[in-house]
Amino acid sequence: MSQVVVVGGGLVGCLLAVYLARRGHRVLVFERHEDPRADRISGVRRPSINLTLCERGLAALEAVGVRDQVLRLAVPALGRRIHAPDGHVTYQPYGNRGEAIQSISRRELNAALMDFASAEPNVSVHFQQKCVQVDFDRPSATFEDARTSETSEVEAECIFGADGAHSALRSHLQKTDRFDYSQQYWTQGYRELTMPPAGPMRWPLAEDSLHIWPRGGYMLIGFANHDHSFSCALHLPFEGENSHQSIRTEAGLMEFMRAAFPDAVGLIPNLAAEFFAARANSMLTVRSKPWHHGDEALLIGDAAHAILPSYGQGANAGFEDCLLLDGCLEKHKHDRRAAFQEYEASRRPSMDAMADLCIEHFAELRDRVADPAFLRQKAIERRLNELHPDLYEPLYSMISFTRRPYLDAVRVERRQQEVVARLLEMDRIEERVDTPEVRQMLEDAARGSDGGVAE
Amino acid sequence: MSQVVVVGGGLVGCLLAVYLARRGHRVLVFERHEDPRADRISGVRRPSINLTLCERGLAALEAVGVRDQVLRLAVPALGRRIHAPDGHVTYQPYGNRGEAIQSISRRELNAALMDFASAEPNVSVHFQQKCVQVDFDRPSATFEDARTSETSEVEAECIFGADGAHSALRSHLQKTDRFDYSQQYWTQGYRELTMPPAGPMRWPLAEDSLHIWPRGGYMLIGFANHDHSFSCALHLPFEGENSHQSIRTEAGLMEFMRAAFPDAVGLIPNLAAEFFAARANSMLTVRSKPWHHGDEALLIGDAAHAILPSYGQGANAGFEDCLLLDGCLEKHKHDRRAAFQEYEASRRPSMDAMADLCIEHFAELRDRVADPAFLRQKAIERRLNELHPDLYEPLYSMISFTRRPYLDAVRVERRQQEVVARLLEMDRIEERVDTPEVRQMLEDAARGSDGGVAE
Repeated sequence: MSQVVVVGGGLVGCLLAVYLARRGHRVLVFERHEDPRADRISGVRRPSINLTLCERGLAALEAVGVRDQVLRLAVPALGRRIHAPDGHVTYQPYGNRGEAIQSISRRELNAALMDFASAEPNVSVHFQQKCVQVDFDRPSATFEDARTSETSEVEAECIFGADGAHSALRSHLQKTDRFDYSQQYWTQGYRELTMPPAGPMRWPLAEDSLHIWPRGGYMLIGFANHDHSFSCALHLPFEGENSHQSIRTEAGLMEFMRAAFPDAVGLIPNLAAEFFAARANSMLTVRSKPWHHGDEALLIGDAAHAILPSYGQGANAGFEDCLLLDGCLEKHKHDRRAAFQEYEASRRPSMDAMADLCIEHFAELRDRVADPAFLRQKAIERRLNELHPDLYEPLYSMISFTRRPYLDAVRVERRQQEVVARLLEMDRIEERVDTPEVRQMLEDAARGSDGGVAE
Repeated sequence: MSQVVVVGGGLVGCLLAVYLARRGHRVLVFERHEDPRADRISGVRRPSINLTLCERGLAALEAVGVRDQVLRLAVPALGRRIHAPDGHVTYQPYGNRGEAIQSISRRELNAALMDFASAEPNVSVHFQQKCVQVDFDRPSATFEDARTSETSEVEAECIFGADGAHSALRSHLQKTDRFDYSQQYWTQGYRELTMPPAGPMRWPLAEDSLHIWPRGGYMLIGFANHDHSFSCALHLPFEGENSHQSIRTEAGLMEFMRAAFPDAVGLIPNLAAEFFAARANSMLTVRSKPWHHGDEALLIGDAAHAILPSYGQGANAGFEDCLLLDGCLEKHKHDRRAAFQEYEASRRPSMDAMADLCIEHFAELRDRVADPAFLRQKAIERRLNELHPDLYEPLYSMISFTRRPYLDAVRVERRQQEVVARLLEMDRIEERVDTPEVRQMLEDAARGSDGGVAE
């Protein structure tokens, strides 16, 4: 039985280990941190950021039979509730057919996936092991034990880097000739805040939705947990007015929060303690090329292509990577290099498109959320989708509720945006959206999208 | 006397050490490789790639009094000699007033700069010392001796990274939060070839020029040495037809070279041995941000901003960095952080513009050198400069023969290119270049450039 190494026991590393074990490999997973299930024993529940699973991620879980167990840990969100500065709340369903995304604690999801991986007969997981050296020729990876500082070299047929945006495997690849790489930080960072349950079995906010307090330069987002709490992320610029740097005192924090999020501030009892407990989390976009080194090494998930969380796609993309890679490994059973090549060639254009899209969308949230022209455009897009659900599919739906390649979704959206731009130039278009003329424009655009002509 | 560390004893590291010593610092230079002057003792002259010094680099050498000594090692090139496939040679002078760039062996230049640095009373140079760890808080850097494998930690007031495109200091900065970074390799690589002297004191080609054999997908460039040899660089794609990968045998190499460079091949007696001696050299563009870490560390030269050699500016930009940094350190004598901030703020836009420009220019050489529309455009540009030398300044001249900030040169060129684009749309423009109408267009463009309006 051939031995492979997975660097990283996070979300993608655990799922990948299951896939690889099912393909007949002995899989050794090396994780830098402690076992994420440690708090089950200690009973100390540490807070965790939430993420949302959508169709792509769930399909990858389903293929190895763990979808339903994961869904038991999640709370479905059927739409967004937008909180205006005056406290007024607007509900926007995600889809026309009751589609939902699944809010889940990152830590709990990781623990569940660690259970699944550990339950595989051919998977072994080794914690507190930092990857300090890689030899691509052998191939082998060397790990340093955080407890003893001892190092051990592990030989394997192939080394998979599923070790996230700050991947150690990638930092070794980066030093090989002709490896293209970029890391680009977002101008804002977030701090994690908690809204505890409002009472026994009672959420502090409607649990059927993501809650968003968009304020242009900053925003608050709340995700429901299945323990009836909400996990929130407060996004602020790093520097300047109302920033992580400028808010330095409890009084300053409370003044800012009361003015910006009056209906949220009372739901966060430990606001100051949580805010000042740690520095702000940064977010970055990572691009790397190539993702594989011969047939000896492959980067996957955030290690290959970290994206901003604008569309909640980081974990979903990483899970989908596992599913797509598995298909390529199945197709090229006796030629792993060919499998890696096909996987990268087919997946890269989608992840490049998503990287750009997520930056644009975050910039839009930051810069245009109060811009009347932008709001008018968004209203027309919603109206087009209501009137012509067969012809106008919101980008968010294509990304979250289909498995259409990201690149296709982005291309369809580009054509739809051309129609919207033309509509916005017309007089009193709001009154004319429901005309045969507009339907014809959408039909022409949709035909373009079916033509399958490479752009 | 305060102690500073310079990581890297290459071209920029040596010059920077001189500048810093003159500012009153004790300077410790740590170089990963052996002393570049070692071959003076051994008598074994290893080949070296050449580079060209222009006004920017020479001004930075002059400011510390070493310009003339360096020029004694150089051969001036007053223009380009373009070798057509049929052997026909066209001469293009670089300037209208006899301006020249200076061709020099990289190794000899490095050795000379090492002499200058070592002659400074407060500079000590330590060879075969690899930077393996950096502590930005102390600050300190740890070096491993290549001979003994022993490590030593060196504390310093400030650590300068002048250690080139693959900078070790930068790789430590890259792991700090919110450090933006990219490395992007060029699709082509080069191999070094030598044309020995044609006889005693006789160059094999006219030594007053750079020699270029542009062939679109590949090219050969020759630089005169003061020992009467020529150093050549053969640029080929890494993969595909006529590439480093496809040329695998001496017979295949000779066939390719005879067809592509018939008038050069006979001048390179050790062609096959040199070609197959090592793998092709890659070239890359490096972008990093920020260049400084508080007042404890600064990246300079290629370590901060490696660019492709399209305009021969890598070393010149690095030398000019030293001169500009020195100006900022003089202005903010008691606030190094402020000096670093001003240096980065003023220099970054120029280096960003150059990075893009050098990629565009290399792509143009590769893709458009045989394109009739491109050749027509180049002919009109030359004609405009001949007729209106006061109003149309070639980009190459602004970069090579002035100290105008790179960004200004790029902006002026953009306006000039707008005029050229408009001219190219006119009928029989070749006959009308010498009209008051065209002069007026150039005057309008030049006024725009003097308006100083931010773009």
